[in-house]
Amino acid sequence: MEHAYIAIMAGGIGTRFWPQSRMNLPKQFLDILGTGSTLLQSTYRRFAQIVPENHIYIITGHEYSDLVRQQLPSISDAQIIAEPMRCNTAPCVAYMAYKLANIDPQATFVVAPADHLIENEAEFQETIGKALTFASEKDAIVTLGIKPTRPHTGYGYIQYDDEMVYENNARRVITFTEKPDYEIALQFINSGDFLWNSGIFIWQVGQIIKAFEKYAPDISGRFSAIVEHYNTPEEAAHIAEAYSLSPSISIDYAIMERAENVFVIPSSFGWSDLGTWLSLWEKCEKDYFENVALGKNILFYDSANCLVSAPEDKLVVVQGLEDFCIIDTPDVLLIGKIENEKRMRDIHADVQKYRGSKYL
Amino acid sequence: MEHAYIAIMAGGIGTRFWPQSRMNLPKQFLDILGTGSTLLQSTYRRFAQIVPENHIYIITGHEYSDLVRQQLPSISDAQIIAEPMRCNTAPCVAYMAYKLANIDPQATFVVAPADHLIENEAEFQETIGKALTFASEKDAIVTLGIKPTRPHTGYGYIQYDDEMVYENNARRVITFTEKPDYEIALQFINSGDFLWNSGIFIWQVGQIIKAFEKYAPDISGRFSAIVEHYNTPEEAAHIAEAYSLSPSISIDYAIMERAENVFVIPSSFGWSDLGTWLSLWEKCEKDYFENVALGKNILFYDSANCLVSAPEDKLVVVQGLEDFCIIDTPDVLLIGKIENEKRMRDIHADVQKYRGSKYL
Repeated sequence: MEHAYIAIMAGGIGTRFWPQSRMNLPKQFLDILGTGSTLLQSTYRRFAQIVPENHIYIITGHEYSDLVRQQLPSISDAQIIAEPMRCNTAPCVAYMAYKLANIDPQATFVVAPADHLIENEAEFQETIGKALTFASEKDAIVTLGIKPTRPHTGYGYIQYDDEMVYENNARRVITFTEKPDYEIALQFINSGDFLWNSGIFIWQVGQIIKAFEKYAPDISGRFSAIVEHYNTPEEAAHIAEAYSLSPSISIDYAIMERAENVFVIPSSFGWSDLGTWLSLWEKCEKDYFENVALGKNILFYDSANCLVSAPEDKLVVVQGLEDFCIIDTPDVLLIGKIENEKRMRDIHADVQKYRGSKYL
Repeated sequence: MEHAYIAIMAGGIGTRFWPQSRMNLPKQFLDILGTGSTLLQSTYRRFAQIVPENHIYIITGHEYSDLVRQQLPSISDAQIIAEPMRCNTAPCVAYMAYKLANIDPQATFVVAPADHLIENEAEFQETIGKALTFASEKDAIVTLGIKPTRPHTGYGYIQYDDEMVYENNARRVITFTEKPDYEIALQFINSGDFLWNSGIFIWQVGQIIKAFEKYAPDISGRFSAIVEHYNTPEEAAHIAEAYSLSPSISIDYAIMERAENVFVIPSSFGWSDLGTWLSLWEKCEKDYFENVALGKNILFYDSANCLVSAPEDKLVVVQGLEDFCIIDTPDVLLIGKIENEKRMRDIHADVQKYRGSKYL
């Protein structure tokens, strides 16, 4: 596909993976699964099997540009798109769309987070191929939905119309739902027409720009006003202004939940957003008592369902614990219940409040 | 008291306090309570208020002589008695007795561990004074017994005859009991005539040598055979041989439990052997939820009855734990139930077996 492009979003700060993920080295830049590659490197490699490497862009915070360069030495500076500030995903997508329209007005592009896990790469490639084909041929906004395997309360859900199957197995989206509580998640699973929202989107530049103009003109106005500066030396200065004036909202809220021509392709390529310690635990190799050891010197006694991450040389002895995560780093040690995302957020906020950025 | 001496036993390796206590820096050389003094320094200072400083001897493993010198810079080399090997307490006491008999045949001396906590120093000094007086005047082996405050299963117990009170409040010992189980400890407490065995002994050199000759001739024979070499340049070589041939047993087992002229002075000067994480927790300042933080950056959430020890600069966040100890050091992290001495011993043995001495 000559006009297919990929935009990898690598600007997150990964607070949910603190203290392993840090302000100066967030999750996407870590080899969090111990595979030998960082999440960004794995994501890039995955897409490099689908499109030419020079069709892949990395959108990241300007402070992370050097990290991207280090981790992906084969890409050019033009492929690293530095955001001047953190502004959620909608401005990020708008920026990418206007910039890419200037390069190739016929472009169809994938927007994908840098920090997700994909277990079945062949199936992933096939699904992305179908989505690119469908999006390039239709006036459609396309997302990938993951067939749910359990009533996960940490994911958003997509309900689709299961009566009508379009080309490339696309289905029309009925509604998006934010993270539900457990009872509702269970109903979603049982109904059979709900999918997890993967956060992976596919569209033509023209279609997404049209959607922005219709549903989020306060964003698109900022980026369309500077259209003559994309891919020129003046781009950065104008983008800085556009970002500073743009509302900070998510692409889901700005576009997906409002647009009418939204399609989803049901997928099952072994996906996880690796958004919590529990989701990491789920995807890791476990011992007989379901403990996960991310480190070389971790000993468990009378313990089950724990996840321990520690520097390679550190000896960690865990006795008498169940369902805990233990994250040891040189300057921070976190011990807490593994299924407790909310409390972890409180703790992160407290550390910021009472200790400043020293430990973040 | 002109002929009063102190022998501080500082040769332990403190395995029960691993990983804070290490082979090359055992518990007695640590400021484990955060007072600004190591346990050895506190013990020394306590006795320096009772006898002249040059009457205090430190008995320690030869590998720790330099540590003693560093921590007690005012003492002379002659006051540091280096044991050639670890051989439990009976040979240690025999060595001290024969060596001291050569210096002052009229000596009465206290044997006390370097790593205990004494909260009420005035009361301690008064009790030691009474014990020295009693021992110097009688043909007696004297020990200090601590009035128990709870049915502790980690201490030995001393039963005494409560009908007859001797000078200086001394009582005749009926029997020694090793660490009892909980039910028996409870009976001991309720009976009113049991005390905790403090491991602090007082006797004349002549009396303890006589007791060794009667109850442990296999030990005393080794140390009496080299009597002309004490306090000469040949001492070390002969002591090395005596230790290598002497059985390795405790002074309790070799002498105290067998001798007949054993007296105890009931005491209550706020004593702890600081033998376990639980006993340390008991003696430390606690927050509202009974958590102990030994470190400057320790945050507790939803936690109670925990003890956390960590380097000053390390941020430790503990969420959702009760009754645990968390000991973080640069190369070892231990997390385990606080009241679980036996399991901790197993773990220490495992680490030795599977990781060698690297982490000990």
